[in-house]
Amino acid sequence: MLLSEICKILTLDFKGEDKEIISLNTLDDAKNNEMSFIDNPKYLSSLKTTKAYAVLVDKKYQDNIPSSTIALFTDEPYLKLAYASKIFASKVLEDSGVYPEVDKSAKISPTAYVGEGAKIGANVQLLPNAFIGDYVEIKENTIVYPSVSIYRNTKIGKNCIIHAGSVIGSDGFGFAHTKTGEHIKIYQNGNVEIGDNVEIGGNCTIDRAVFGSTIIKNGCKIDNLVHIGHNCTIGEHSILVGQSGLAGSSTFGRNFVLGAQSGVSGHLNIAPFTTVAAKSALTKSIKESGKTFAGFPSFEHRKWLRLQAKIAKLLK
Amino acid sequence: MLLSEICKILTLDFKGEDKEIISLNTLDDAKNNEMSFIDNPKYLSSLKTTKAYAVLVDKKYQDNIPSSTIALFTDEPYLKLAYASKIFASKVLEDSGVYPEVDKSAKISPTAYVGEGAKIGANVQLLPNAFIGDYVEIKENTIVYPSVSIYRNTKIGKNCIIHAGSVIGSDGFGFAHTKTGEHIKIYQNGNVEIGDNVEIGGNCTIDRAVFGSTIIKNGCKIDNLVHIGHNCTIGEHSILVGQSGLAGSSTFGRNFVLGAQSGVSGHLNIAPFTTVAAKSALTKSIKESGKTFAGFPSFEHRKWLRLQAKIAKLLK
Amino acid sequence: MLLSEICKILTLDFKGEDKEIISLNTLDDAKNNEMSFIDNPKYLSSLKTTKAYAVLVDKKYQDNIPSSTIALFTDEPYLKLAYASKIFASKVLEDSGVYPEVDKSAKISPTAYVGEGAKIGANVQLLPNAFIGDYVEIKENTIVYPSVSIYRNTKIGKNCIIHAGSVIGSDGFGFAHTKTGEHIKIYQNGNVEIGDNVEIGGNCTIDRAVFGSTIIKNGCKIDNLVHIGHNCTIGEHSILVGQSGLAGSSTFGRNFVLGAQSGVSGHLNIAPFTTVAAKSALTKSIKESGKTFAGFPSFEHRKWLRLQAKIAKLLK
Repeated sequence: MLLSEICKILTLDFKGEDKEIISLNTLDDAKNNEMSFIDNPKYLSSLKTTKAYAVLVDKKYQDNIPSSTIALFTDEPYLKLAYASKIFASKVLEDSGVYPEVDKSAKISPTAYVGEGAKIGANVQLLPNAFIGDYVEIKENTIVYPSVSIYRNTKIGKNCIIHAGSVIGSDGFGFAHTKTGEHIKIYQNGNVEIGDNVEIGGNCTIDRAVFGSTIIKNGCKIDNLVHIGHNCTIGEHSILVGQSGLAGSSTFGRNFVLGAQSGVSGHLNIAPFTTVAAKSALTKSIKESGKTFAGFPSFEHRKWLRLQAKIAKLLK
Repeated sequence: MLLSEICKILTLDFKGEDKEIISLNTLDDAKNNEMSFIDNPKYLSSLKTTKAYAVLVDKKYQDNIPSSTIALFTDEPYLKLAYASKIFASKVLEDSGVYPEVDKSAKISPTAYVGEGAKIGANVQLLPNAFIGDYVEIKENTIVYPSVSIYRNTKIGKNCIIHAGSVIGSDGFGFAHTKTGEHIKIYQNGNVEIGDNVEIGGNCTIDRAVFGSTIIKNGCKIDNLVHIGHNCTIGEHSILVGQSGLAGSSTFGRNFVLGAQSGVSGHLNIAPFTTVAAKSALTKSIKESGKTFAGFPSFEHRKWLRLQAKIAKLLK
Repeated sequence: MLLSEICKILTLDFKGEDKEIISLNTLDDAKNNEMSFIDNPKYLSSLKTTKAYAVLVDKKYQDNIPSSTIALFTDEPYLKLAYASKIFASKVLEDSGVYPEVDKSAKISPTAYVGEGAKIGANVQLLPNAFIGDYVEIKENTIVYPSVSIYRNTKIGKNCIIHAGSVIGSDGFGFAHTKTGEHIKIYQNGNVEIGDNVEIGGNCTIDRAVFGSTIIKNGCKIDNLVHIGHNCTIGEHSILVGQSGLAGSSTFGRNFVLGAQSGVSGHLNIAPFTTVAAKSALTKSIKESGKTFAGFPSFEHRKWLRLQAKIAKLLK
């Protein structure tokens, strides 16, 4: 859509040449036919170097906008982003008539659904009522159990097992808020990318990214009823035990282990070989690799055990 | 069914005129062709004013029964209610041949199921393997993703998004217990009513009411794997984050926020604009609006932070 | 497969007579046409009395191997077991053409799937998109709601209700680990057995056993989003409330009650009539019946309440 048309919808003015905008993106990743936004001052350095053609921005940051980027001034950049995201939202189901490419050796149940432009590799098994959205790619030998729903544009590697009922690529939980307390959906136009040899248990939920990808690397093993928020990156050979969950936008090194019913906050960086005990919550980034944490608030595991012993003494 | 027939099944006597009883209901809501019960003395005032035609009641409360209401004396009123609820249970699937009403602009996948008497509004999208039970109503522009199961009599507003795998209107978790430790199902004959502009994540579960409705008001946003117990009422623009849960029969004011992996006990009243932090549990009603709570047991958030600091000092 | 062929795949030597091995099993349960393993010295007494034809075992335990059992020496017996388990893995879907046996009074939705050799009893109702795997048995009057997935070999009793989206018999979460941090799947060749009068809520996950059965006895009532790990045995009339979970291989006496969002560790023995409060975790076996526990770490409930009072005093 032309920038002028977008600005009309958003009731914003702009100075500069009109241009076709093809999508929204982060300040760092936006190309010069994309539009971006800044909501949090910690991204000011990214604003200074962005290649975005236009950016939703508060006037107070105007000195940080590159000369090649058009400023769209607003005191609610995140809310405007939400309204803009709807313009670029993908269709729920395509209807342009592009055939999927299904390898002859794949076993597709007659009640499985394979969307437009999907690619299904050799020996893939799609069981009854599996839903494979448009432009999904699934590589060889992967098994998709019944009633699994894989939303559009998801990529899944080879030798994976996805157990029944899991949902991959549903919308991340992202909203901007109006001054009157309503929540405006930020359409999630990224995807999910899953590596090779990944096993995902029953009734898990893995959200698509708002921009870019939610990434699960090779060899990860995910138990039942696990929730993975949008834009997480999970390192190779990580293990997420039953009913655990990750909020959005955290990055995990390889061989991360998350205990049952535990959680991790959003926007963290977790060093490789970190372990979180069961029923705990990690709320801070971890720089040193190989450590184990427990509790909420969490402590190093040995410290947590000592603390629990101290607490129990209060009874005496 | 005639009261006399019901009493035969329940092995109870009654004095008074026989009458067709059309359903069970609470003391407050029962009409004079319905039957009710009292199990907890805190509802004695409701007993005094009930319009129920008959009531399952312990003899010790006999002085509180209105003269227009027939007493069905039993020392196990809740257990008798459970047996009675089966009499009035809806069919799992109707077979009376009532066609659904589907707007011509709705897009219904060939593998979606639409039950008897259902009403599907304009531009509604039902994706593959969606199940829409009998007499469900879905208003315009709502999207129902694959393998969503919506049980009979559920009502869903306009512009809603229901992500894959969610279950709406399944039975609330209600049982009476025999003296020998068995659990007798209380059939859940209420429904679920969801307002406009509500988004529900993947693999959530929202239980139907035992009587009346489980209610989710306009603008609520619900993340993945969230559980909502029967007979809750959730105020406008509330947010329930991933893997959180509500036990039954609690009422929440507008803009309630429940953090990830947190829970709320049953039978509470929560003031508007209440926030519960992640991994916490609220077990008491909240009268003052706008407060934030954390922990389990929960404290006001600032107090909880101070308490955690004090606890950490035990290590020194 | 012949022991010699198995050993070739596992790159192991053996001394003794070659023989057809029909499956893997525990030391205690293995018959003399089965293969077993020992990984943990606490099973040394079982090694001494095993009837397994061959056993994967570290050389240091060689004095404990019965003369009738062939030793397969390896310093990674659990990892070798993982590789061996793949040899004996069941097919995802059979294709030998064995018809299911469906009682004439059963109501099977046209979009439900019934696998080879399955047995569906009188008055069973299978709703749309239910998946009934190969050789599953479901007894009379049981209702299976939409998009429920029941994996092969599961057995379900009479008068059960399985709510929408639940997954029964998916693979237990079992992996052996290589020295370089990869996880090798232990194929789960056991099953799930569910008694009579059991109700299972929406979007639950109940894992199949690695060997033998995950067992849920008569009269159990399970709420929504509950996770049950492989090889658990749950006593009669137990109640598991919403979003609670059991790790693998624990055994529970009758009338066990697990509160909402609570969990129990693996390999425990829990006495009958034990109750765990909401948002708690039980990590030790319980010998005395009838007690209630709360918290994490858990205490007897009254003690936990006293402890919370003491902790709250830290604020003063």
